Amino acid sequence: MDMHWHMADNQLAYTGKELRSLWIARTFDLPGDAIVAFVGPADVPVANMVDQADVQRGVGIQAAAMLHFVAEHFDDTLSQAVLRQRLLVCLTSEILRQQQPDLPLRRSGDDLYVDDRKLSVSIATASPVSTLIHLGLNIDPTGAPVPAIGLDELRIAPAELAPQIMQAYVAEMESCAAARWKVRGVP
Amino acid sequence: MDMHWHMADNQLAYTGKELRSLWIARTFDLPGDAIVAFVGPADVPVANMVDQADVQRGVGIQAAAMLHFVAEHFDDTLSQAVLRQRLLVCLTSEILRQQQPDLPLRRSGDDLYVDDRKLSVSIATASPVSTLIHLGLNIDPTGAPVPAIGLDELRIAPAELAPQIMQAYVAEMESCAAARWKVRGVP
Amino acid sequence: MDMHWHMADNQLAYTGKELRSLWIARTFDLPGDAIVAFVGPADVPVANMVDQADVQRGVGIQAAAMLHFVAEHFDDTLSQAVLRQRLLVCLTSEILRQQQPDLPLRRSGDDLYVDDRKLSVSIATASPVSTLIHLGLNIDPTGAPVPAIGLDELRIAPAELAPQIMQAYVAEMESCAAARWKVRGVP
Amino acid sequence: MDMHWHMADNQLAYTGKELRSLWIARTFDLPGDAIVAFVGPADVPVANMVDQADVQRGVGIQAAAMLHFVAEHFDDTLSQAVLRQRLLVCLTSEILRQQQPDLPLRRSGDDLYVDDRKLSVSIATASPVSTLIHLGLNIDPTGAPVPAIGLDELRIAPAELAPQIMQAYVAEMESCAAARWKVRGVP
Amino acid sequence: MDMHWHMADNQLAYTGKELRSLWIARTFDLPGDAIVAFVGPADVPVANMVDQADVQRGVGIQAAAMLHFVAEHFDDTLSQAVLRQRLLVCLTSEILRQQQPDLPLRRSGDDLYVDDRKLSVSIATASPVSTLIHLGLNIDPTGAPVPAIGLDELRIAPAELAPQIMQAYVAEMESCAAARWKVRGVP
Amino acid sequence: MDMHWHMADNQLAYTGKELRSLWIARTFDLPGDAIVAFVGPADVPVANMVDQADVQRGVGIQAAAMLHFVAEHFDDTLSQAVLRQRLLVCLTSEILRQQQPDLPLRRSGDDLYVDDRKLSVSIATASPVSTLIHLGLNIDPTGAPVPAIGLDELRIAPAELAPQIMQAYVAEMESCAAARWKVRGVP
Repeated sequence: MDMHWHMADNQLAYTGKELRSLWIARTFDLPGDAIVAFVGPADVPVANMVDQADVQRGVGIQAAAMLHFVAEHFDDTLSQAVLRQRLLVCLTSEILRQQQPDLPLRRSGDDLYVDDRKLSVSIATASPVSTLIHLGLNIDPTGAPVPAIGLDELRIAPAELAPQIMQAYVAEMESCAAARWKVRGVP
Repeated sequence: MDMHWHMADNQLAYTGKELRSLWIARTFDLPGDAIVAFVGPADVPVANMVDQADVQRGVGIQAAAMLHFVAEHFDDTLSQAVLRQRLLVCLTSEILRQQQPDLPLRRSGDDLYVDDRKLSVSIATASPVSTLIHLGLNIDPTGAPVPAIGLDELRIAPAELAPQIMQAYVAEMESCAAARWKVRGVP
Repeated sequence: MDMHWHMADNQLAYTGKELRSLWIARTFDLPGDAIVAFVGPADVPVANMVDQADVQRGVGIQAAAMLHFVAEHFDDTLSQAVLRQRLLVCLTSEILRQQQPDLPLRRSGDDLYVDDRKLSVSIATASPVSTLIHLGLNIDPTGAPVPAIGLDELRIAPAELAPQIMQAYVAEMESCAAARWKVRGVP
Repeated sequence: MDMHWHMADNQLAYTGKELRSLWIARTFDLPGDAIVAFVGPADVPVANMVDQADVQRGVGIQAAAMLHFVAEHFDDTLSQAVLRQRLLVCLTSEILRQQQPDLPLRRSGDDLYVDDRKLSVSIATASPVSTLIHLGLNIDPTGAPVPAIGLDELRIAPAELAPQIMQAYVAEMESCAAARWKVRGVP
Repeated sequence: MDMHWHMADNQLAYTGKELRSLWIARTFDLPGDAIVAFVGPADVPVANMVDQADVQRGVGIQAAAMLHFVAEHFDDTLSQAVLRQRLLVCLTSEILRQQQPDLPLRRSGDDLYVDDRKLSVSIATASPVSTLIHLGLNIDPTGAPVPAIGLDELRIAPAELAPQIMQAYVAEMESCAAARWKVRGVP
Repeated sequence: MDMHWHMADNQLAYTGKELRSLWIARTFDLPGDAIVAFVGPADVPVANMVDQADVQRGVGIQAAAMLHFVAEHFDDTLSQAVLRQRLLVCLTSEILRQQQPDLPLRRSGDDLYVDDRKLSVSIATASPVSTLIHLGLNIDPTGAPVPAIGLDELRIAPAELAPQIMQAYVAEMESCAAARWKVRGVP
């Protein structure tokens, strides 16, 4: 079955608790590997952070409005999930660049920056039955603990951007699967 | 041990036979996960192609001069190797764009195009003990079976580009490993 | 992408060499996980046998006509392939029983018997990039080295049976995947 | 070490909490891969269900009496556990059919039906250190939320059936292991 | 990145709760695969024991003072962790023997004995994102539930022994990795 | 099924070709995971070496007489096989030390030395369906390319030593499996 994608009709807050197994299935009734997007504030208390570097620094995630993506993959390892997460961030960067070729956009690992202002947050982790990815793009970064920029200032409409990113991600995952099964082994 | 990278001093032809386990170790005396680069013609007969779509079409790889990258990863799956290969191509695209912001460069899966001319060839496959990636960037595409472009026409020096790509790839792989071990699991 | 199935239009001999990676892709132009069926003689010399017990006994596979199934799965282990093979044989048994409820059909591991006559041969093995399953149902068992029975004697038409088995197998594999992604973990 | 099987002497209720790692080892003092059977009511509240489709429908499992099987496998993946679970259900179907050839028994995925009445419930899931399978066959289906039938009505004695199913499952798993190590690889 | 090792400056009690993912990273600020050592009492209540045989016997771990080692490996399986744990115990045995050739030291599985007195406790387990090993060598075994001996009686200084064991373990893991990537496959 | 062990009745030369999948099964009729021992000369030409460091140095293996062990494990990874190989060498060292406490025996990775003379050769590799380990202990090291010592000079009888080592290895592997399935996971 091909991977599903879905854009939520309503606003949803991201609190970190959404990054758990089968949250997509329960919330959007989508079975199997899937990516969903929704708009809403980000308010992740330190206790909900999965990045232990952030936990140790005592830093959560705060933004007045973000475009959130949550992806879940089954039969995957955390190492693979990290690679997929990087591709999702690369893809997002490519799509933003197509729309705004002159934007001083820079990817560093799983972070996107415009000049030195942070556009995104992202994490990949594992549940007992799957792997999970969160990517949040600031819309209105008010409340962020570091210099940040949002899609509003860039005059990019989240509702138009989200399907582009999700379609590109689904297509990338499918073409990766196709690349997997077209080669013979070598000695 | 961190992944090694190395730029060959001499020209080497790429015939497809280089894509085998421990070729890097034997040729460059580099142990473990590694990426190497070399300049030379590409002349891959159909019998050496690992992409079975190309084998069925009876198409090999031909170019008068290419900048070749070969990477080998141990303790990896083919599915992971395909994801790593995509990141290598994304990275290459990002580096080319930094150097030539106005270049009409486009990535499609594991291929790079300038307008509609092909800049690259790439494949990922598995040996019995490792996975292997080949990425070739045309320098002089003479002989290519499709409309193609090379680094010469783009006035990019392979000897300067190659270390940038390899250092970025090694750094990306290390930061992926670091992203792997900094997160707790979720329910 | 869902698994493909295909019934060959023409007769094909099974010699054992068909049990190799990408043979389905090359022969029937089907990408990814797939199962195909074809009718033809079986003539597998000992040198082509993958079952080492048979190699040691010096026994190949011989039958004047068989209905052959070959399946290939990517991203699979040999242990999983053996379990899938068993399900394919169970499915085949269930379908034959639906058609002929009074048939004294018996499954023992990956073998099907009618009374004490052998109806089938089967094996699962691994290629460097995939796993492969062969299931052969005798049509005309002439030449078999053991007491055997065929679909002809049972008055079952291979061309009708094959799609039923393949559709059931594809549906079983899809429902196994669905069972995989609907459960939460337990402590 | 071969897989163990055990039939409990006493009645035990199944509440869903039994489907956890090392429950077999702690309850029956059986180490390693094992399958156990016991008779008792089924009363699984929604909160204990691992099938998220049932959780969303708000449906638990209820029956006045069931023959329960719980199996645990170590060094296994959830995908493999689902395949093993299917084989357990196929086996159970084969054994019931041997005893009652005229029973209108039908397997659909991991469910068994007699005509359109449900005979069984089943699930496979993963713990942090193992995979777990539950199969319950109604004895007295009173309380079931769907049309159901039980072994009592079929005049099948659970104490006789259970060892047959467990012995067949252990033999099937051993013959799958043997099938795993008798084949050479193919190209 | 090579595996890190670290000897704690301060005493720390071992209660069993230290055997969890990222405890090393949070406590000692060491990223990735690592082994740490510390001196302190052992007081592991039954509820914190991960060995279910001990849980069933109702036995915890008690000692007035122990030299504790905790190791964490990412991208590992529990089966591999058990093998690594055995090597850690073998190494420790070899180092003790070098220092005291006449010591009647005996290794049995993951236990070390001097004559029939127990010198060590050890366990390997899995977290959702890693595997974890604990090895405790008695310094002062007061409180142990079985006849035991400690480093004090053997006149071995924990502060000198610990770095030797950790350096040997890191070197062994690195040489195992090197052994992994120097071989070609065989048919 | 427990792992088998077997001591060959006859002398057999070791040429490197024995390190292949199912060689044990075909030669000694032992199914599944197994370890066998035999006495015979070692004459491994460079072309048969699997250690690429030796291939590059152009060094094979030569000895007038050796006690050879070959082990095969199914459902294993090469990384695990390397860990098992190390345990086999540790075990051998422990057994030799029990017999000759004053022997200046030293283990370094997978090599055993008496003073500075080499007692052993060893390698672990992967076949398409299994992993394989060779351990050779010199009996008469005549022909070895480095300073070497043999069991003859140590007055150790190969026919007595071999079963001790194989029984200890089988017991170690079984106790590793038991250690695998007795622990609960941790957070």
